[in-house]
Amino acid sequence: MFLHKQELQFASTPDKPDAVYARKLQEVLGGQYGEISVAMQYMFQGWNMHTPGKYRDLVFGIGAEEIGHVEMLATMIAQLLEKAPLGITSDAVQDDPTVAAVIGGTDVQHAIVAGAGARPVDSNGNPWQGSYITASGNLLADFQANANAEMQGRVQVARLYHMTDDHGVRELLSFLLARDTMHQNMWLAAAAELQEEGAETLPVPSNFPQSKEYTDVSYQYLNFSDGAAAAEGRWAKGPAPDGKGEFTYHDGPTTSAPMPPPTHPDSRFYGTTELPNVVEKAAGAAQDALNKE
Amino acid sequence: MFLHKQELQFASTPDKPDAVYARKLQEVLGGQYGEISVAMQYMFQGWNMHTPGKYRDLVFGIGAEEIGHVEMLATMIAQLLEKAPLGITSDAVQDDPTVAAVIGGTDVQHAIVAGAGARPVDSNGNPWQGSYITASGNLLADFQANANAEMQGRVQVARLYHMTDDHGVRELLSFLLARDTMHQNMWLAAAAELQEEGAETLPVPSNFPQSKEYTDVSYQYLNFSDGAAAAEGRWAKGPAPDGKGEFTYHDGPTTSAPMPPPTHPDSRFYGTTELPNVVEKAAGAAQDALNKE
Amino acid sequence: MFLHKQELQFASTPDKPDAVYARKLQEVLGGQYGEISVAMQYMFQGWNMHTPGKYRDLVFGIGAEEIGHVEMLATMIAQLLEKAPLGITSDAVQDDPTVAAVIGGTDVQHAIVAGAGARPVDSNGNPWQGSYITASGNLLADFQANANAEMQGRVQVARLYHMTDDHGVRELLSFLLARDTMHQNMWLAAAAELQEEGAETLPVPSNFPQSKEYTDVSYQYLNFSDGAAAAEGRWAKGPAPDGKGEFTYHDGPTTSAPMPPPTHPDSRFYGTTELPNVVEKAAGAAQDALNKE
Amino acid sequence: MFLHKQELQFASTPDKPDAVYARKLQEVLGGQYGEISVAMQYMFQGWNMHTPGKYRDLVFGIGAEEIGHVEMLATMIAQLLEKAPLGITSDAVQDDPTVAAVIGGTDVQHAIVAGAGARPVDSNGNPWQGSYITASGNLLADFQANANAEMQGRVQVARLYHMTDDHGVRELLSFLLARDTMHQNMWLAAAAELQEEGAETLPVPSNFPQSKEYTDVSYQYLNFSDGAAAAEGRWAKGPAPDGKGEFTYHDGPTTSAPMPPPTHPDSRFYGTTELPNVVEKAAGAAQDALNKE
Amino acid sequence: MFLHKQELQFASTPDKPDAVYARKLQEVLGGQYGEISVAMQYMFQGWNMHTPGKYRDLVFGIGAEEIGHVEMLATMIAQLLEKAPLGITSDAVQDDPTVAAVIGGTDVQHAIVAGAGARPVDSNGNPWQGSYITASGNLLADFQANANAEMQGRVQVARLYHMTDDHGVRELLSFLLARDTMHQNMWLAAAAELQEEGAETLPVPSNFPQSKEYTDVSYQYLNFSDGAAAAEGRWAKGPAPDGKGEFTYHDGPTTSAPMPPPTHPDSRFYGTTELPNVVEKAAGAAQDALNKE
Amino acid sequence: MFLHKQELQFASTPDKPDAVYARKLQEVLGGQYGEISVAMQYMFQGWNMHTPGKYRDLVFGIGAEEIGHVEMLATMIAQLLEKAPLGITSDAVQDDPTVAAVIGGTDVQHAIVAGAGARPVDSNGNPWQGSYITASGNLLADFQANANAEMQGRVQVARLYHMTDDHGVRELLSFLLARDTMHQNMWLAAAAELQEEGAETLPVPSNFPQSKEYTDVSYQYLNFSDGAAAAEGRWAKGPAPDGKGEFTYHDGPTTSAPMPPPTHPDSRFYGTTELPNVVEKAAGAAQDALNKE
Repeated sequence: MFLHKQELQFASTPDKPDAVYARKLQEVLGGQYGEISVAMQYMFQGWNMHTPGKYRDLVFGIGAEEIGHVEMLATMIAQLLEKAPLGITSDAVQDDPTVAAVIGGTDVQHAIVAGAGARPVDSNGNPWQGSYITASGNLLADFQANANAEMQGRVQVARLYHMTDDHGVRELLSFLLARDTMHQNMWLAAAAELQEEGAETLPVPSNFPQSKEYTDVSYQYLNFSDGAAAAEGRWAKGPAPDGKGEFTYHDGPTTSAPMPPPTHPDSRFYGTTELPNVVEKAAGAAQDALNKE
Repeated sequence: MFLHKQELQFASTPDKPDAVYARKLQEVLGGQYGEISVAMQYMFQGWNMHTPGKYRDLVFGIGAEEIGHVEMLATMIAQLLEKAPLGITSDAVQDDPTVAAVIGGTDVQHAIVAGAGARPVDSNGNPWQGSYITASGNLLADFQANANAEMQGRVQVARLYHMTDDHGVRELLSFLLARDTMHQNMWLAAAAELQEEGAETLPVPSNFPQSKEYTDVSYQYLNFSDGAAAAEGRWAKGPAPDGKGEFTYHDGPTTSAPMPPPTHPDSRFYGTTELPNVVEKAAGAAQDALNKE
Repeated sequence: MFLHKQELQFASTPDKPDAVYARKLQEVLGGQYGEISVAMQYMFQGWNMHTPGKYRDLVFGIGAEEIGHVEMLATMIAQLLEKAPLGITSDAVQDDPTVAAVIGGTDVQHAIVAGAGARPVDSNGNPWQGSYITASGNLLADFQANANAEMQGRVQVARLYHMTDDHGVRELLSFLLARDTMHQNMWLAAAAELQEEGAETLPVPSNFPQSKEYTDVSYQYLNFSDGAAAAEGRWAKGPAPDGKGEFTYHDGPTTSAPMPPPTHPDSRFYGTTELPNVVEKAAGAAQDALNKE
Repeated sequence: MFLHKQELQFASTPDKPDAVYARKLQEVLGGQYGEISVAMQYMFQGWNMHTPGKYRDLVFGIGAEEIGHVEMLATMIAQLLEKAPLGITSDAVQDDPTVAAVIGGTDVQHAIVAGAGARPVDSNGNPWQGSYITASGNLLADFQANANAEMQGRVQVARLYHMTDDHGVRELLSFLLARDTMHQNMWLAAAAELQEEGAETLPVPSNFPQSKEYTDVSYQYLNFSDGAAAAEGRWAKGPAPDGKGEFTYHDGPTTSAPMPPPTHPDSRFYGTTELPNVVEKAAGAAQDALNKE
Repeated sequence: MFLHKQELQFASTPDKPDAVYARKLQEVLGGQYGEISVAMQYMFQGWNMHTPGKYRDLVFGIGAEEIGHVEMLATMIAQLLEKAPLGITSDAVQDDPTVAAVIGGTDVQHAIVAGAGARPVDSNGNPWQGSYITASGNLLADFQANANAEMQGRVQVARLYHMTDDHGVRELLSFLLARDTMHQNMWLAAAAELQEEGAETLPVPSNFPQSKEYTDVSYQYLNFSDGAAAAEGRWAKGPAPDGKGEFTYHDGPTTSAPMPPPTHPDSRFYGTTELPNVVEKAAGAAQDALNKE
Repeated sequence: MFLHKQELQFASTPDKPDAVYARKLQEVLGGQYGEISVAMQYMFQGWNMHTPGKYRDLVFGIGAEEIGHVEMLATMIAQLLEKAPLGITSDAVQDDPTVAAVIGGTDVQHAIVAGAGARPVDSNGNPWQGSYITASGNLLADFQANANAEMQGRVQVARLYHMTDDHGVRELLSFLLARDTMHQNMWLAAAAELQEEGAETLPVPSNFPQSKEYTDVSYQYLNFSDGAAAAEGRWAKGPAPDGKGEFTYHDGPTTSAPMPPPTHPDSRFYGTTELPNVVEKAAGAAQDALNKE
């Protein structure tokens, strides 16, 4: 159950309107790694979780915070759009060709569809979609996904920080950057705790019996490109991070098999078959004709 | 530049046709975490990489291996479909209602669209899409994304292992599981190496000046749900994994701000405004009428 | 700002596992008119709203309720999947061909991707997307959209009611049906109130000067099909609901214009032009060749 | 069956080329509420309708008109693009940086993909999709959806009216505005007629027995946000629009239930389970190893 | 302008209900190569065409026919669904597990969303989308696309023919097969006529000066796989179909270039750069800190 | 199996940065007819092919070449972005409003998401998707699709050639144009060879017995628009290209059938039925109430 409070987590007001920047901010609201994604990702992890207690409280607690971040960004976007030229022709300022050109860099659906409001889309106007999120039920895998989401998100916010000099916007971003710092650390700590407690270990999923995998290649670096430098990394020799094997380096595959012969599905799928079959095909067609319903 | 060799990395032939399982295998070919995703993800990381040497060789080398895994799965799917009942009505076996029912569980586009062949889609028939992949240019973030992809992928292959008892299919899966073990370890090793070399550290991106973030909340656990157990995790006290702060725990936000007043965009967007405005609106409409072109 | 409470709005537990029904329930969780849609729609309307007070409180209050409905459905779906056969082969029950067939009717990603958990998708596995929602800033239009969403949603829940005889599931549905009844009534009441207060009237948007529309056809029923019965409806004669015109009926258009001549864009777009142009095209190509850089 | 006539419903020619505006017009051709949407929506309602006569004639008659509106907009877009600078470099005008900048505001696929022609996409270049439409078979719900589509559509056309001062374009928009006025009125009249005739009433679907819903909450306003003003609306007291209940107002839910315990699916989905299970898991893994195939 | 006539082009009534087959038929209604695709494709080609006369009349004439085919399929799908078990639990027949299993093979949105009606989706439930169509303005390319669409469509209808033994359905399919035969022939004839008249020739686009292409490789077969048999085809020697070159065969590329060095974008994008840069990066960060706003 | 070589097929370096052009180039990398599409299309045709030898070698050989073209374009895009202004505010040049405006024409995700790198999207930022490709198993149909893809692709590259005057970019395009020339010719030659060898003929699929189609309309041109000029084409009289029929011309359909009566699905789908049913409906509701569980 969710309760809404008409407060924001942090105060910030833009110095001035900026519709082009409003479009850019959409990335961290409704993009692949935007706030809708993390809010939904953590919530679905909570609803699918098989264990009560600290991990479930964690995903619910942070999930709810992230919906509030969606709200902060949507509010900021509406403020940035409020007085910005958005293409209304009789505005004197619009007649300036440079202004007209700038309008070309906005999300035109901000004006036409939302009437100067935020939308659940990314900075190119692609609608947010459910396929962005990850909630597998395996917490070590999912916390890795969460750490990744917070890293990609913080990279994007850091880039956006340099794309404006508006103090109000930068204040909001400085707040989001700090929370991303916390959340990166938090998911890495949670992943470490899972392993310390023995709930999960590497490789994920840890309780699949490794005896069932083809262990000859479990710790082999197989190089399918012609760059030799990959042999220099710590993935090419020495103990593997899971503590269960030693890396070795190989140039190309260590196993191979001939390509199997082509398949021959039922002829009524009308795929093209080998030429020796042409005669048979003609016979078949004749037979078909005879059998014609 | 890519060269194709008419060999597979590993020999495996299914014991028997199984179109329902062929549909399920599509998940790890064309799903969010399937082989097309990792192949494309590593390649785009290579093309966007700013540094030559071991890391670039790594993404190219493994990226090329993964395209070969797409091929192994596509080949297996075609073999599983080859003799399977796929809905052709005159097949005696099809008249059995149970067989008819099983056909309902196949990807019907395998038959109608591909003529008993593989497709670039997931196990629910959703087409693969470019928004599944991650290539930000920041290697620590991206290797985290790669480790996540290999973890999610190995979880899915492990589940699929238990959904068949076909020895040939299981052999292929045992090979893929082993490679996922390697690749998980490899990306974690690569992420560790980046940090040891000082190329990147936490939090990502590490060279964004932390002084520009709102540091008061950089290491605060803020609990927005009512479960108290989140306070027990190591994300709630003690040193953070980045070595730059100490976690603290707080029930709810430590900052807040009143919701800002609503925006008032140009009236020609025809949004609904406050009621005191109704009179003004009428006046405006009258004025508009007078000014009518 | 949102706070999460580890309670549901209504208690319900399924009598028995049912993975096929879990798939069907996804429609009202993550479909076009599912709970994610209404939650997001009302929230974005709130963030884009230009007026404080009762209407904004309304969309925030109901929006937050709807996120809780997402949670109730996700919880129910996880419960329905918990003990259901989902394709793990060694389960004795799975060897029964009828059971195998039933598994074909499940959302196979419930098993492979989510490990027996809910997903942000519809009943055919299509991911939820941001383009499902409506938040234009014009409240009369948007409340109409909301009433429609609640009507479509209640129709779908009513259908789902008859697709199960599980008492626990039906209890949940009976609760959702009641809330849909409330919400339909509520949005219709809100739309009526907007009009009574004079904030908005018909046609939407009401303060666009109707003098700027081509009023000859503003109240004409133009029949482009050959069925005569459309003339019998109250849209074909009598006063229009907006109180500003009288309907008239016409068989076919009352205005028409010849199709304009084709366009002739720049020849360097390499579109095919009229045949008399062939000579010119050859000349142009020759000229191009001369000018060759 | 459909017949095409090489005429348009209304004559209009743009004064001058304007590729940026052509992009904006795509919204009402191929956007969520564009003409393709209404044409398809009304047609599918016709094909799915269970009753002959005036309602079916209505959706067929208006559906066919709307395909003609798609044609008018596509024609206008091609005309706006015909002589516009679209990025061909040797055009003198293109060398002007302002012109170059304006080109950045166009839909670049208009040039690259369509060679200066219209496309079935919205103003951000998102392809039109089938999930935009609604055709449930319940006419009261569907006519509500239709009224909403015409309202949203008229709001967008009204906004577009102010984004150009081209007389030819404005003429076309004035025609579309008038038809949207008619169509809004028409669907509201049709919805009213359905109710007067007793074919459908509120709440939709009206013949689902309300006794099967959890009637305690059927007319309760439950406030999940902290704004008190929602209590002032007519949705909070007095008779509901369906004539079947009285609204009441409540701060927060009137029912609640504890969050159910987490689910525990089959261990072979490799979800993370509670820590007490760790021992069991190890035992299970050992057992698995023994049983290894 | 379009007029609708309440007639179908061909009479056909299914012998019996069949919801699984109804789902399969959706492929040729709303799939990549379904009737919506060809209707939209031909219409957009008409609206974007630069030449009046026979070619424009052709695309308009056939486009309108195809909308009628959408209608025939939608009508048939509704008929196939009319009396079919679709999951309503109290139906006696539904209690049979085999029937329940068959229901699993239906498009469950046919029941839940459309109330036993057709939808604008393919046989896996993916919504139709605007990106399926092709209308480039170059008629030789577009007629090639049209011929392809009719070929793929006829292959799919032929497969569907064998997936039912219902006489009414087969009659409809036999009609569509005949029209596909006509339309394949028609587009090939139209493509031939364009070339005979000299309006377009090969390679498309024919009036791009071939002197501007890197002609060394214009007729070289370059083999990037290790199969030698590709040398046996008529694409490897002899005159090319465009009459402008002679094919030659080469094993691998005839040109090559070293991979260029990595790019080094602005450091404020926070991509990872070469290690020698680490020192510089630290210095830069220090400088940034000094300059801190 | 695929091997990667750190070489490109052709050397080219842009003269200067150009982020707007980088966005445009994305069309031929990740658009409907971009290099990802042809690479995936040819590969899937290979994996689904039923015949060994020259045709399979052909699709594998060219498919591998096309992945290399993806690489060349991604590399070029990264180079074009390297030094281009992408919105970092402190760059002096950025303060120039014209530069700011130009930035509006870039793909803003190039900066925010990829840090000045290429992405698997088209020129409007739509992600590449699996539904762009065609691999039916019928080689004559599929080679037609391939020829179409190469024609559309060459048209797009030719347009892009005129949208830049950068010599390095033009060199790359001149190389791609030449390969498109080869590939168009190659697929047309392959389609011709299939027919000469008798493996496939027209109409596709050729071994579906034409006796099963409704042959009355197999060679009839049926004109559903009012343009008379379509009668002048060679599709309206004379022998059809498949050599199996003579074209005839008809104004409108030669067959027709009355629209069938509406369907009446189960009343528990809550569709609206005919008015005489109202009484029955009331009775049914009463009955339902009596039967209430």
